[in-house]
This record gives sequence, structure tokens and C-alpha cells, in this order.
Amino acid sequence: MQTENKPLILVTNDDGITAPGIRHLIQIMKTIGEVVVVAPDRPQSGMGHAITLSDNLYCDPVTIDKYSQVKEYSCSGTPADCVKIGTQEILKRKPDLCVSGINHGSNSSINVIYSGTMSAAVEAGIEGIPAIGFSLLDYSMEANFDHTTKYIKRITNNVIQNGLPKGVVLNINFPKAGEEKLKGVKICRQAKAFWREQFDKRQNPQGRNYYWLSGEFVNEDKDGGTDVEALEAGYVSIVPVMFDLTAHQFIDDLKSWPIND
Amino acid sequence: MQTENKPLILVTNDDGITAPGIRHLIQIMKTIGEVVVVAPDRPQSGMGHAITLSDNLYCDPVTIDKYSQVKEYSCSGTPADCVKIGTQEILKRKPDLCVSGINHGSNSSINVIYSGTMSAAVEAGIEGIPAIGFSLLDYSMEANFDHTTKYIKRITNNVIQNGLPKGVVLNINFPKAGEEKLKGVKICRQAKAFWREQFDKRQNPQGRNYYWLSGEFVNEDKDGGTDVEALEAGYVSIVPVMFDLTAHQFIDDLKSWPIND
Repeated sequence: MQTENKPLILVTNDDGITAPGIRHLIQIMKTIGEVVVVAPDRPQSGMGHAITLSDNLYCDPVTIDKYSQVKEYSCSGTPADCVKIGTQEILKRKPDLCVSGINHGSNSSINVIYSGTMSAAVEAGIEGIPAIGFSLLDYSMEANFDHTTKYIKRITNNVIQNGLPKGVVLNINFPKAGEEKLKGVKICRQAKAFWREQFDKRQNPQGRNYYWLSGEFVNEDKDGGTDVEALEAGYVSIVPVMFDLTAHQFIDDLKSWPIND
Repeated sequence: MQTENKPLILVTNDDGITAPGIRHLIQIMKTIGEVVVVAPDRPQSGMGHAITLSDNLYCDPVTIDKYSQVKEYSCSGTPADCVKIGTQEILKRKPDLCVSGINHGSNSSINVIYSGTMSAAVEAGIEGIPAIGFSLLDYSMEANFDHTTKYIKRITNNVIQNGLPKGVVLNINFPKAGEEKLKGVKICRQAKAFWREQFDKRQNPQGRNYYWLSGEFVNEDKDGGTDVEALEAGYVSIVPVMFDLTAHQFIDDLKSWPIND
């Protein structure tokens, strides 16, 4: 499977190919395997699992860091597009791993649904490639990623060694760098939380109303074992994420509905 | 909960507010409740659960059909944006139901992940609103939706009467209209299928390479009970869809990994 015993690793993100988070992740992955980067040419936060169907895609070789000796490609599409074009057009063989991030901002809880970072990991998972999304609870472009390095290496090596079950990818979130050391890793479930939207209504210079989406994160899930809880307590959270969205437990109930003749 | 005992129904889609599929759905929903439409101003297929974070949103009242007597709003955002702005800014109270579609094209199997239609239903579900996405296996803008009417009414009335469990929305797909009558409804699971991508590489007039994403749908899931199987056999498929993506069955395994100190 591996060239010179080094795993082939596809790296992508949703903040764009020049974001500090992906630059940090590339440096870590270079210590683990042969790295190829295919990432969006501009920020794509909140893109969910969008793909580009009605427009063409550009995907060009690019040099961001001339000393890094990593092949990099800048793509005009979404994170999911980057994985598709990376595996089909750029890489000569199926990668052994796909990593996405490090996202500038949380992808814990329901954020996994809106996340471009995680959609790239899920897309790789759909294609049968072990995949991990990494996110840091710090939106700043000056965020400090140093505390994530040790854990990213360890988790990545475990995934390469053990593989992941078919249909499962990992969603990893890190607390913001602080004075205290990380307490360790917790395996979690996705907290049942949501965003309470607020729309900021304004007028453009022509007098037409427009809106900015903003909101407040509401977590009423206090049952324990959630990613939000782990992160608040200073742990790295790992949630195994699947893309069979079937609510199997509701199938029997639904069968009793009088829908058929 | 309901004005004059009529349920308040938010209607949206991803093909855009003028698409025949949503016009058909609006006509059906008018027989069931009070309808308000908030839908994208242009096609948004393949948008997944994208939301608009880096740009402003327009959302203006619009008259598509002057005889329909339905309040309609055209929004510059994604399907998920439409639900957010619809519930927060347009509607005076929480709707009793959100319906999305009728999509021109299948959202069975893994398509649920890429689907703007389903992301609108999921967004409503996250907000605690019973929600249904409807799709027809016919991409044509001249598609015939007549055979869907009876089932859409029946399924919608059942959802209004029984509600849906917290965290679950419905994904309904209809076979393309044909000579044979629909055989009925099957409650299904999402088929484990995927798209095998093909990129069509071209050159623009300036000589720069670009790509069109296309692909072939590959279904190797032959275990029975899937939406793809039901649709091929001439049934309407209903898949209950959840947005807790946690792969609960893998949590214990993961806890045995040597990730902590």
C-alpha cells in the first residue's frame, strides 16, 4: 500500500490553503508520511458538504512555502471538492489517510453538520479512506497550535495502525491554548446542541434591507459524555462520526403509520 | 399552536423558488395549512448543509404566482439559510412543519449528504420543527409530479398528526413518473452507496486547465431494505434521517486506543 513504507497523506481544510492551521498540520504530517495538499484557494467556512455542480473547478500546483518540499494544489472548490479532485486527479494512488484542518474554530456538537473541515473528512470516508478532521476552539488567525502537536501525532499514528471501521471518520476538537496543559483525550458523543440564530438587519447604500447571520450556541445536553463537556473540562474530544444518517431506531415505528393503501 | 386550526407550514427547496417542484409542493401544502415560502433566488443544488457566514443575505417578498395567495420570500442564501431566516425573521411564530422540495433529482442513499433539499429539512429538525424533504428521481425541469400528490398529502398529514421523534426528519424519494402506478410506500434505510467521480478536464480560452465534476453512482449494498432498492421496485421510499452523527457503536473500541498518557 505504501511507497517506501511511508503512508500517503492527503491534507485539506476549509480555511484556505494559506491558513496557519493547515500549515501547522502539514508540518506534523511530514513527520508521519508523504504529504500532498489539495486545499481551497480561499476560506470556505460553513460550506457543509457542498460540492460544485454548476461551475467549473480550477486546481493548480502552488508553492506556499518553498522550503517545505510538499506538493500542494490550490482548488477553487469546496473542501469536499478538494478531496474528490485530490483522489481522482492529483494523487497517483488511493491515499492511506486524509486529514482536514486544523480548523480555526470549533467543530464540536452540531457544528459538525455545517463544517467544511468535517465534510472533507466525511467525503474521504465515503471513498473508503481513513479520515480525521482537526479543529481548535480559537477563531483567531494568530491562534497558537503548539499544544495540539503531540496529540495529533498520537491520534494519527493510531488511525494508521488500527484503521477505522467502514463508514466512520474521527472528529477531533482541541481546547484553545491556555496556561494549563491539556488533560488528555476523551472519546465522546456529539452534544445535542444548536445555534439560536440572530439576524442583524441592515440597509445597503441603495436602501435595500440585508441581513448578517449570527447566533448564540445553546447546549441543553447535560447527560454527560459529550464533546462540549470534555472540551470545557480541558480535554481533547474525539467523536467517531458516521454518514449513514438512517435513524434505524425509528424504522419500526414508521412502519406502523397508515401510509399505504 | 395553530392559527384557525390550520398548521403553519414553511416551504423551501434547493432548485430555486421558481422551480416546478416547489410550485407543485406549494399547491399541495395549501390544501393542508397556511403556507409561507422562503426559498433560494437561484438553484442551489449540491450545497449540502452550507450556510452563509462571510456574506450578507437578502430576503425579499416576491410574487411568483399572483393567484396563489401565498406569502413568498426569495433569499440570496442557501437552503439552510432560508430555514434560519424564515423561522427567525419572516414567520411570526414557530412553524408546525417545514417541507423542502420537491427536488428535481434523487436524494436517496448517500445523496442525502450533498443535498440542499435535505439540509433545509435537517436545519428545521435541529430547530425542533417536524420536517420532510421530498425528491423525485427526474432531473428534468419538465418533470411530471402528478403521481406524488396523493402520497405527499398522506405522509404530511401523518407527520402533522403523529409528530416526529426529536432529532429525526424524513427523506422521501419518488420514482420518476412512468406508465405503471406507484406500488406504495416502503420505510427504508439509506443505501450504502457512493459516487465514483470522474473529472472532465478542459482548457479555457486562456489555456488554463479546468475540471467539471461528474460521476457514476455505485451501489454495492445488496442487503435489502434500502431506499435504492425500494425506488427501483417502484415504491416511494421513506428514510428517517438523524443528525446525531455519532457512531455510538465505535465508542467503546476507541476507548481502548493508547492515546492518553
